[in-house]
Amino acid sequence: MRSVAYIGESRLQVGEVEGRPPGSGEVRVRVAYVGLCGTDLHILHGNMDARVDTPLIFGHEMSGTIDAVGDGVDGWSVGEKVTVMPLDWDGTCPACQAGNEHICQNLDFIGIDSPGALQELWNVPARTLVRMPDRIALDAAALVEPVAVAVHDVRRSELEPGQRAVVIGGGPIGVLIAIVARRFGADVAVIELDAARRAQIEGLGFPSLDPRQVDQVEWVEEWTAGTGADVVFEVSGAASAVFGATALAKVRGTLVVVAIHPTPREIDLQRVFWRELRLLGARVYQRADFETAVELIADGVIPVDLMITRIVSMDDTQTAFADLEAGRAMKILVEVGPEGGRA
Amino acid sequence: MRSVAYIGESRLQVGEVEGRPPGSGEVRVRVAYVGLCGTDLHILHGNMDARVDTPLIFGHEMSGTIDAVGDGVDGWSVGEKVTVMPLDWDGTCPACQAGNEHICQNLDFIGIDSPGALQELWNVPARTLVRMPDRIALDAAALVEPVAVAVHDVRRSELEPGQRAVVIGGGPIGVLIAIVARRFGADVAVIELDAARRAQIEGLGFPSLDPRQVDQVEWVEEWTAGTGADVVFEVSGAASAVFGATALAKVRGTLVVVAIHPTPREIDLQRVFWRELRLLGARVYQRADFETAVELIADGVIPVDLMITRIVSMDDTQTAFADLEAGRAMKILVEVGPEGGRA
Ligand SMILES: [Zn+2]
Ligand SMILES: [Zn+2]
Repeated sequence: MRSVAYIGESRLQVGEVEGRPPGSGEVRVRVAYVGLCGTDLHILHGNMDARVDTPLIFGHEMSGTIDAVGDGVDGWSVGEKVTVMPLDWDGTCPACQAGNEHICQNLDFIGIDSPGALQELWNVPARTLVRMPDRIALDAAALVEPVAVAVHDVRRSELEPGQRAVVIGGGPIGVLIAIVARRFGADVAVIELDAARRAQIEGLGFPSLDPRQVDQVEWVEEWTAGTGADVVFEVSGAASAVFGATALAKVRGTLVVVAIHPTPREIDLQRVFWRELRLLGARVYQRADFETAVELIADGVIPVDLMITRIVSMDDTQTAFADLEAGRAMKILVEVGPEGGRA
Repeated sequence: MRSVAYIGESRLQVGEVEGRPPGSGEVRVRVAYVGLCGTDLHILHGNMDARVDTPLIFGHEMSGTIDAVGDGVDGWSVGEKVTVMPLDWDGTCPACQAGNEHICQNLDFIGIDSPGALQELWNVPARTLVRMPDRIALDAAALVEPVAVAVHDVRRSELEPGQRAVVIGGGPIGVLIAIVARRFGADVAVIELDAARRAQIEGLGFPSLDPRQVDQVEWVEEWTAGTGADVVFEVSGAASAVFGATALAKVRGTLVVVAIHPTPREIDLQRVFWRELRLLGARVYQRADFETAVELIADGVIPVDLMITRIVSMDDTQTAFADLEAGRAMKILVEVGPEGGRA
């Protein structure tokens, strides 16, 4: 069967791998679509070479149907439409024992630390499966994972209805956070450098600002009548964005660090102290976040057509990354399965 | 009457000022002792020249007795032993309206933004008064304010009984945080560079480590059986301490920024993200923190004799700062009132 693997030195290879029957406790999924994301881009750029074994079949945002069920798996049948929550934890470390399995100290992130979804048939532990209602099409189902990220970030922030949130960075995760935060009852503004993205964001009904044209601190002060934002989501990954983020938050406000910052960042701790701010790390998701994400897609809250810029073949994966990197796309899906397309 | 004022350019002046009767809503306090702290040292060094008006009679850790009561003040009588919670807020800003008066957006910190306690007779708003039980001596009463800081920091951390806390920096506030955290039921270790301070800290029953001799990350890993600390208090103010602090905290652990960091600091946001850490600013105190601080001193939890290194006259204030700066003292009190001494 065909697969796409990262083989090191910024190169991908489309190749043939041998399938195998699902092991005990596993399910074999016939993959329909795989979404490409920023983490995959980090892998391609070699930023994660110390962590990944090559060749690595990557991909962790996906949809598919159950192709075969292994021994000891109950409650799942061939043909069911699913996505996968790509986390496997040890269940024994202090984080797991405290109920934080999603950030297990020995977490296996499937698609990074073990083979991912860019293959026609993919064996995964049955406990990672998430059922899709019939009314979610297979392409939309591939958005469940990034929507779950956004749900997790918003939940972690403890944003309350009627509060005001600022999202720094209007890429796919930033836009999804804005949509989820609004759905949870907040007013949301998005800071984004790219004019085309700002237009899209405004089309979704969010005020959007270019921090090079507008003084973002003054803007937020005015928008919040002198209070400051209840929650600021840092999704851009830029050093300057982190540095400026603390100035946007209200007294006892919250700053959620969503983006990956591979090098240390300067933080205005004077401001953190002065306003008794709270800064929270937010990583991946929990089962409840996936369930909420499925509901949000099923209920039409997520603008699927806007989020999916394009669907490409496995052969075009490398080109798709170039577009993602240039900011020319929100989300690009790779069509893996021949039976793909709107269900 | 005599007073001590900061007159700019790292200089103090002991001088005479005219007293006045307490205004409406005010009480005049006959000051007994004033503790010197790191903030006062910042004032002396000119670091706060942009904020303070000179000459500034400073001092905000104090004890005294009521000398006169102004119009409209109920419930206070001449001769009562008191300390002052040196905060005055506007009551109208968004922070105040959200119940965070202690970090009012227009806070008047008495002793910095308005005249402080280093004068024989001090007029303060009656609502800032805190009553002292008879069994607290006047010198010990001057410790209530720094103990309230420590109580606030520990409360803010949401430390729970049975948890493990690391305090970085074993100066007066660090030691008080350790004592309060232990009283709240936690196991506490203190990281401190100075050998003499480490000896004092160990004398109080806390494990103490020199991060230049011991790998602090390994030490905390072992101390917490691989979990990491539940709470880390950054009290040192050092850039390297902040940078290293994130490595000590458990998954979903808390880092409380207690020290003042006047310039931006590098934070390992990768670690914040990876472990879903929480970083909290903590500033001053609330009324409940003062009340708890009074109880802790009354109950003998605070080692008053160890905390008060020395009591000096007003004329020796500048010399006392030199000792504080050199780390040759925990807390130095200035004796202002002639009737001072252990009650
Ligand atoms: Zn685990
Ligand atoms: Zn206020």
